Amino acid sequence: MTNYERFLSRAGVAMQASAIRKMGTIAAQSPDIISFAPGYPAPETFPWDEFRDIAGRLLDGRDANVLQYGPTRGYPPLVDALLGLLEDRGVRTRREELVVTTGSQQGLDLVARVLLDPGDVVLVELPTYTGAITAFRNVLATMVGVRQEADGVDLDDLDRVLRDQRTAGRRVRCLYVVPNFQNPTGLLIGREKRRRLLEWAESRDVLIIEDDPYGELFFEDVTSAADTRPIKTDDEDDRVVYLSTFSKTLAPGLRVAWVSAPAPLAEKLELAKQAVDLCTGGLDQRIVHEAIARGVLATQGPKLRAFYRKQRDAMIGALTRSLGAQVRWPPPRGGFFLWVSFPDHIDAERLLDRAIAHGVIYVAGSAFFVNGAGRTIARLSFSLPPPARIAEGGERLAAAFRDELAVEESGAKVAR
Amino acid sequence: MTNYERFLSRAGVAMQASAIRKMGTIAAQSPDIISFAPGYPAPETFPWDEFRDIAGRLLDGRDANVLQYGPTRGYPPLVDALLGLLEDRGVRTRREELVVTTGSQQGLDLVARVLLDPGDVVLVELPTYTGAITAFRNVLATMVGVRQEADGVDLDDLDRVLRDQRTAGRRVRCLYVVPNFQNPTGLLIGREKRRRLLEWAESRDVLIIEDDPYGELFFEDVTSAADTRPIKTDDEDDRVVYLSTFSKTLAPGLRVAWVSAPAPLAEKLELAKQAVDLCTGGLDQRIVHEAIARGVLATQGPKLRAFYRKQRDAMIGALTRSLGAQVRWPPPRGGFFLWVSFPDHIDAERLLDRAIAHGVIYVAGSAFFVNGAGRTIARLSFSLPPPARIAEGGERLAAAFRDELAVEESGAKVAR
Repeated sequence: MTNYERFLSRAGVAMQASAIRKMGTIAAQSPDIISFAPGYPAPETFPWDEFRDIAGRLLDGRDANVLQYGPTRGYPPLVDALLGLLEDRGVRTRREELVVTTGSQQGLDLVARVLLDPGDVVLVELPTYTGAITAFRNVLATMVGVRQEADGVDLDDLDRVLRDQRTAGRRVRCLYVVPNFQNPTGLLIGREKRRRLLEWAESRDVLIIEDDPYGELFFEDVTSAADTRPIKTDDEDDRVVYLSTFSKTLAPGLRVAWVSAPAPLAEKLELAKQAVDLCTGGLDQRIVHEAIARGVLATQGPKLRAFYRKQRDAMIGALTRSLGAQVRWPPPRGGFFLWVSFPDHIDAERLLDRAIAHGVIYVAGSAFFVNGAGRTIARLSFSLPPPARIAEGGERLAAAFRDELAVEESGAKVAR
Repeated sequence: MTNYERFLSRAGVAMQASAIRKMGTIAAQSPDIISFAPGYPAPETFPWDEFRDIAGRLLDGRDANVLQYGPTRGYPPLVDALLGLLEDRGVRTRREELVVTTGSQQGLDLVARVLLDPGDVVLVELPTYTGAITAFRNVLATMVGVRQEADGVDLDDLDRVLRDQRTAGRRVRCLYVVPNFQNPTGLLIGREKRRRLLEWAESRDVLIIEDDPYGELFFEDVTSAADTRPIKTDDEDDRVVYLSTFSKTLAPGLRVAWVSAPAPLAEKLELAKQAVDLCTGGLDQRIVHEAIARGVLATQGPKLRAFYRKQRDAMIGALTRSLGAQVRWPPPRGGFFLWVSFPDHIDAERLLDRAIAHGVIYVAGSAFFVNGAGRTIARLSFSLPPPARIAEGGERLAAAFRDELAVEESGAKVAR
């Protein structure tokens, strides 16, 4: 028996490998490679000593529930702590609206499953986060892209796209956005635009899925905390499903994130989660809870903002030195990524093959577009490599770039 | 905006609360309640000291990857260790066939998503595990039940059901079975029957989903390790998707389990998992790996077998004393459960209301049947409460039973 295709569901047939995860495989196989591919947080920012102390206490056997199954909604003291965290971000929420998830990717998956039937349309930004693309694709939803401007999603295009889709008879239930330091562009949706987005969602009867993993990681030279105020904050009509995570602020190896959704939807997310993994890991949840309770999380914010700002500077410096006017990017306001455009004649996927040969990787931009665009763009993550490696990676990328130009030129000569 | 129904997917509308998880909520609200409801392992069997030592070493900061994102397939040394564990069970497998999952529930969910389209038929035992029911329901599959005999699934009925479904034009892709100490019945599929089941799957072109959380927890007075030999062991035609977990042998709070499937299916399971949670928790996986490497897991087996056998004895003793000939059950060969039948006139769901009033809970049998049966049956889990509490729970159940009889009698008088 060799052909399993006939056993697969439609979703199973449609499933594709994530471009980011593929790069991870390449990186794992080549230890010397410099990876600008995945958005991995820097482990030196993790509060190791605190985690070690916390884990030691949790595992002393006094609380038998630490390693037991737990409530699907989450460890109750952690859920309570989330109420406070959200209030700090200006979001007033209630316990019934919260579901702890096993990473934010699970939140996206649960939302997709609860809201989207095959063929339903979900509106996404051009470009958008690949993890959302895979979650939506796996429920066979149709993704339709909306243009972005310097201050985020283009509202005119958004409304035009919605109207077109509805005129074509498709059901459009929700818009997915990453308002803070979008993955991959690093853009921020403007404050005024957030308010108008909410009004639009209400008038058009659409839900907003607001994904906010990077909100606390703003660059203080160009952005303030007030700029990151979640759309959810002003959600008086209960239209926003808000997702956030501890993967970037504490550590991703602890798979702990959460969703805040209108209570009836949160109830459905909980039911979906029962079938998906019963509950999020008990030890992970308690480590996170204790890190909040001890004030560790609160001290992470300023530390991380300073750290990643330096990383950004290292990346911009490296690319400016190595590639100069050959590349440009929108200035990132926070987060982990530089969204780099090459000249129009450069194919970023082909360049990637050369880059791998030179020992540096990134994610080709096309992975982030649901409309086939992005051919000349690359997402470069500056979060993980030390500045010296970032500089070296810039050199390697420039070498790959020169190779590509040389081959293009010789190709052009042959064609002449 | 109060009505969210219009935003829900068909799966979202269909989602229902698990009867077991509902009981968990009741138990959480009433601290004095004696719970025979969930199949929770006993925390005194968890190797706390070892876990504490292992976690302390893992979190010393020397290995930055401990708290980083990891490969979707799982932490490579753990995957390698699984090869050895499976070999101990007689299953020869390869790395490409393995996927680490965030608990076995995730394995079921991934399998359901990769194999089943809405309306597809999955064959299940009567009764079957509720977690599988919810996973299959959430992909809108149709579950069709197959009778069981004392040595497990009835092969004649199985073939009849398959034929009927195919004659009716439905696509039947797989059979889900729990061969070792089935949840909820405690039954074991006989050795000869396992072989015949495999032949049947080959001749009928069906996949077998073999769920094996309890295989190591056999009762040595009535069962031997050889009786638990997985169906997968003899799977020369690559028809079996095998799931197992560390939730019962180490601790469920570490959400670590695995699937062994034919490589092309394992690849799809990996892709599905990318969209579902990216990767299983790094700390959890490493704790489990280290527990295997240090030989902790190997010492758990005999300890757990002795422990749960005593628990079984406590439960059988308690019910024999308190309810005597009013109840009967198939003798469990291993695992966590007693599958208790009441007299025909007793409704186990109505009795449950009385039991709650008396401070004891169980799961009504109907939750485990996909055909509406199980009205007079209850699943009583003996894994968690200490023997004295089991005895007390038996008394409480008997009191509830007497109440129910009294009301029935007075009802009968009124009817006369």
